[in-house]
Amino acid sequence: MICFNNDYSEGACPEILAALADENLRQNPGYGMDGHCAAAAARIRALAGCPGADVHFLVGGTPANLISLTAFLRPHQAAIAAESGHIAVHEAGSIEAAGHKVCTVPAPDGKLTPDLVRQVALAHTDEHMVQPRLVFISDSTEVGTVYKKAELAALRQVCDELGLYLYLDGARLASALACAENDLTLEDIGSLTDAFYLGGTKNGMLMGEAVVVNNPALKDGYRHIMKQRGGMLAKGWLLGLQFETLLRDGLYFKLAGHANAMAQKLAAAFAAAGCGFVAPSPTNQIFPILPLAAVEKLSPRYGFELWGTPEDGMQAVRFVCSWATREEDVEALIADLKTALA
Amino acid sequence: MICFNNDYSEGACPEILAALADENLRQNPGYGMDGHCAAAAARIRALAGCPGADVHFLVGGTPANLISLTAFLRPHQAAIAAESGHIAVHEAGSIEAAGHKVCTVPAPDGKLTPDLVRQVALAHTDEHMVQPRLVFISDSTEVGTVYKKAELAALRQVCDELGLYLYLDGARLASALACAENDLTLEDIGSLTDAFYLGGTKNGMLMGEAVVVNNPALKDGYRHIMKQRGGMLAKGWLLGLQFETLLRDGLYFKLAGHANAMAQKLAAAFAAAGCGFVAPSPTNQIFPILPLAAVEKLSPRYGFELWGTPEDGMQAVRFVCSWATREEDVEALIADLKTALA
Amino acid sequence: MICFNNDYSEGACPEILAALADENLRQNPGYGMDGHCAAAAARIRALAGCPGADVHFLVGGTPANLISLTAFLRPHQAAIAAESGHIAVHEAGSIEAAGHKVCTVPAPDGKLTPDLVRQVALAHTDEHMVQPRLVFISDSTEVGTVYKKAELAALRQVCDELGLYLYLDGARLASALACAENDLTLEDIGSLTDAFYLGGTKNGMLMGEAVVVNNPALKDGYRHIMKQRGGMLAKGWLLGLQFETLLRDGLYFKLAGHANAMAQKLAAAFAAAGCGFVAPSPTNQIFPILPLAAVEKLSPRYGFELWGTPEDGMQAVRFVCSWATREEDVEALIADLKTALA
Amino acid sequence: MICFNNDYSEGACPEILAALADENLRQNPGYGMDGHCAAAAARIRALAGCPGADVHFLVGGTPANLISLTAFLRPHQAAIAAESGHIAVHEAGSIEAAGHKVCTVPAPDGKLTPDLVRQVALAHTDEHMVQPRLVFISDSTEVGTVYKKAELAALRQVCDELGLYLYLDGARLASALACAENDLTLEDIGSLTDAFYLGGTKNGMLMGEAVVVNNPALKDGYRHIMKQRGGMLAKGWLLGLQFETLLRDGLYFKLAGHANAMAQKLAAAFAAAGCGFVAPSPTNQIFPILPLAAVEKLSPRYGFELWGTPEDGMQAVRFVCSWATREEDVEALIADLKTALA
Repeated sequence: MICFNNDYSEGACPEILAALADENLRQNPGYGMDGHCAAAAARIRALAGCPGADVHFLVGGTPANLISLTAFLRPHQAAIAAESGHIAVHEAGSIEAAGHKVCTVPAPDGKLTPDLVRQVALAHTDEHMVQPRLVFISDSTEVGTVYKKAELAALRQVCDELGLYLYLDGARLASALACAENDLTLEDIGSLTDAFYLGGTKNGMLMGEAVVVNNPALKDGYRHIMKQRGGMLAKGWLLGLQFETLLRDGLYFKLAGHANAMAQKLAAAFAAAGCGFVAPSPTNQIFPILPLAAVEKLSPRYGFELWGTPEDGMQAVRFVCSWATREEDVEALIADLKTALA
Repeated sequence: MICFNNDYSEGACPEILAALADENLRQNPGYGMDGHCAAAAARIRALAGCPGADVHFLVGGTPANLISLTAFLRPHQAAIAAESGHIAVHEAGSIEAAGHKVCTVPAPDGKLTPDLVRQVALAHTDEHMVQPRLVFISDSTEVGTVYKKAELAALRQVCDELGLYLYLDGARLASALACAENDLTLEDIGSLTDAFYLGGTKNGMLMGEAVVVNNPALKDGYRHIMKQRGGMLAKGWLLGLQFETLLRDGLYFKLAGHANAMAQKLAAAFAAAGCGFVAPSPTNQIFPILPLAAVEKLSPRYGFELWGTPEDGMQAVRFVCSWATREEDVEALIADLKTALA
Repeated sequence: MICFNNDYSEGACPEILAALADENLRQNPGYGMDGHCAAAAARIRALAGCPGADVHFLVGGTPANLISLTAFLRPHQAAIAAESGHIAVHEAGSIEAAGHKVCTVPAPDGKLTPDLVRQVALAHTDEHMVQPRLVFISDSTEVGTVYKKAELAALRQVCDELGLYLYLDGARLASALACAENDLTLEDIGSLTDAFYLGGTKNGMLMGEAVVVNNPALKDGYRHIMKQRGGMLAKGWLLGLQFETLLRDGLYFKLAGHANAMAQKLAAAFAAAGCGFVAPSPTNQIFPILPLAAVEKLSPRYGFELWGTPEDGMQAVRFVCSWATREEDVEALIADLKTALA
Repeated sequence: MICFNNDYSEGACPEILAALADENLRQNPGYGMDGHCAAAAARIRALAGCPGADVHFLVGGTPANLISLTAFLRPHQAAIAAESGHIAVHEAGSIEAAGHKVCTVPAPDGKLTPDLVRQVALAHTDEHMVQPRLVFISDSTEVGTVYKKAELAALRQVCDELGLYLYLDGARLASALACAENDLTLEDIGSLTDAFYLGGTKNGMLMGEAVVVNNPALKDGYRHIMKQRGGMLAKGWLLGLQFETLLRDGLYFKLAGHANAMAQKLAAAFAAAGCGFVAPSPTNQIFPILPLAAVEKLSPRYGFELWGTPEDGMQAVRFVCSWATREEDVEALIADLKTALA
């Protein structure tokens, strides 16, 4: 069985494994107060053009989102998200468990627009309703699409206009920034959002996400809340060291580039075989729509996720590639899908 | 600088590093649904004599405690803990953030007794007060002491009498079970508690704790709540694999035995030099009380924690040894403390 | 200005004022442990055919809903509600503040159906998503419509099938049960729901709602949680006494009957003048759709709520009648609306 | 049975009953947006010398405390309170349910001092512990004692020094301000605290407390949070009207003066009979310590609370007088206690 289910099936890229082995017996202070976290944070600040930002290292995307929104929102405030947004669906109600409503809106291709944001915000008119205060977006989105620079700038503008924070979930930010369609830089992300996180788990690390808090109004108390919500790793230096390694010599984007290339090769094959897609993804997740018979034929040899329920004999599915995906496995799948779709 | 500040300054024991490197490129299912987690859970069930228990792997002690108590308690229910209990002091209010009061009581040597439990429980008489429902203990405790089998059995009895759950924080359970004074087995822990966790972070793992839920009434919804509170690691197999390795051939207890031996060697030297101790610890944390001048003399070369505030020119301190502590470093410190205390 | 904005503009019906004045200087135990609460609870149990139910008195609908759902749901569980459901929109995120997601679905005429419930419940498939556990309905609904007996029985059935609790918000239950279209009795409500509340604030009381918990699995801890969430009134006997008075000699339904009659008289006039309605309401709230010019003409003399935003020059509005609405005021409005709509 | 159990056994003072009856059929806007709330708020601002303060009306002390602390504290912040403080004991964990730890300290006579505050605040040194941010005091305290002006000023100073808010629970503030020992004015309370509440439930109202938020940094979002936590009464004008009535012509203090006089008459009789007291209370609650035999003799005819558990054959008890206490009842009790204590 070759798995295309997700981008976290394997461990870490070899450079990280080597760095961990090398550092293993050196003593480091606990809880992220070590030199590796400091160095990784400095590197991230430089890359994002945020010299004054706070950087916090967490083990996963759900804790990154829930701790950030817990720190950023007051009790009566809510987040605005696409109906397909990760916090709205697949984090088990973590934001509500922290006391906040997630106000959702159907969003074409998984992307919020100024109009959608305005529509949700303006529908909340008085103290009998929650107060939307933060816009949550993902780049790449949950369906693999990416924000263009003009789109992100327009969201920044509507946020400024309506007094909203802009927060970007970057679980797959490397893939977004490394894709062909992208025209954003990490500096753009740094200057256009109030806070975002840079994903590591899905791009070559054992685990780890780096939350960047650029808006000074959002900084206070973050480490207290990290500890309180169980998000402060004792051996925090493990996270710092991995980011330090990944952000050296462009490795972070090189890994994402490979993942994208593998996924796009696969996408081209599905398209060539006549498949449609849930959304036009240029990144490492693709969502072809297959006849049920093809799903059945591919399932014994390949792992992939069903996306929603079948309709008219067709089933949307998700194939994900990663830094660890082997080109020969992609080619094997391409060969088989030609048969399956014939 | 040689650090005795804690037992999580280094990475993982060599056996674990090797296992991680070996498994690194194999594909594993996400979120703890893999074979390594299954194998480690089976091994833990066998060792604890709990064939029906649920086992969950988390990255640290604070998430283990907060997710467990969130899952086990209803909104109006509270935990009973020693005033020195970790959840009462050093987890940044995580239990209160989950909505539950921690009712504390001063406990000699950091250990709860049936009388102390009864005193707290019976003071809560009606619906204008919280309802104590769970007793939280740590073994070894926060001051290094351990529970004897008779003591744990007596706590079980008072819990049964008063309708309370018994939960054991085992961040340093390996050290407790491996110490000279101990007469408990993991099977005893399994049969006398409703739930407990087995610590890995402080005994040779990169990170990881294994929560064992033995009482069937407490099992429902645990994995939902793990996910919701940010405690479900994407590459959960990293945790399973580490426990699998550690629990093979007694490695888990061998590492703890070394940590204890190093700490007790140090304790003997402090005692020989005439020092008193905060509590009589037979485990890997010791708490000698030193003249301030000695603290000052040792500080430039050795890392250790100050424990509370100085009184009458004396300062309690904490020295911690681990699986990674080198005997030559202990001997260097012993030599220096003789001079410092002369 | 004559206000049709809501059904809580005036104080209490004269019978209640008299009862309060009569009881005023007698001493009653605090917190609802008095004879009036006991008598009112007994009366409610008898009327609802729930001899074993617990009855709790609260001051308003939001505390009734939030305390009930806090008591009934575990941390990872969610409520299913119509998109127009009160807890989903106009309670300022109270359910989320208690930690629970409200899963909403667009519902024609504000009413959930078995298909809608099934659709939401079955979309939640694993531990990465919340677990729907309770169906929230209102009768009358937020747009004035009512459930028929067959509809409520069908909801009960789907709840049993899917392991869901059925909870009914009865802020305007008196109006529902007293309306022409209704074929439900309070006994039906008692036997078909797990819990519901009987509204007083909007039907002649100064304040007060009676929560009836019929499912034994949902009873434990309710009074603790009432106190903890600020819902236990010191002079709880004020609530018991008011319900006692209202439930004597059918007063409760007589007041609602008047409110309905006034609203339906108004509705007939709007219909006769050619107006459409948001939903076909047989109860004390009606939602005609008026030309903007008519809205403008009526506004200086009559209070009413705008319902949503205008579309194509038309504006939906809400007129509410109550036990205190005077027929001459309704007639004045009818006269004026003929002019305004001419 | 004559009840001295508390000061909320009866309804409202006659002036309030009359005002309610008079206003009953007039239409008022909902949710506290009416003229009576506006007038009462203006009167409170004037009396407290806080022209810019926000005033919110709530139905009871527990919602006043929990909504205020929810609004004032960030997630990692905690309150400091006396061990006997109402929020620490008798509000069923409401503050913890809102996510915040209450850090308690034993306080002689139920009163916090600058030293006690400093001791708690300075013990919280880093992000592994909660951050104390608000000092909670009651005046009169839970054992009937009162703060002198110099004591309150000293608390203000330590709060300024340590960056803490000072919050005063005034459930029985009328009794405190009306007692012989008092040298504080409502203006002092207004200028020395960041926020406080003025109690009505225990001083002649059916129900109602007025929260005064003077510190501008604490104002934002209060009404949203009131609604969200179930604290916004539909017929909010009931609360405004009652305060309006009570604060006219000194009625508020006149009622409290009567309650104090009755309690002090009783206290003098207990003292004359040789009883000691839990604390020296000059207000409407007194806490004599009686032989168990006397408790038994008085119990059939008089209601009163046992205070803690008996020790050496003696039992502390609580007798409370109110605006409604009849002098003949006090005299009957005095006559009987002479016999009981003989």
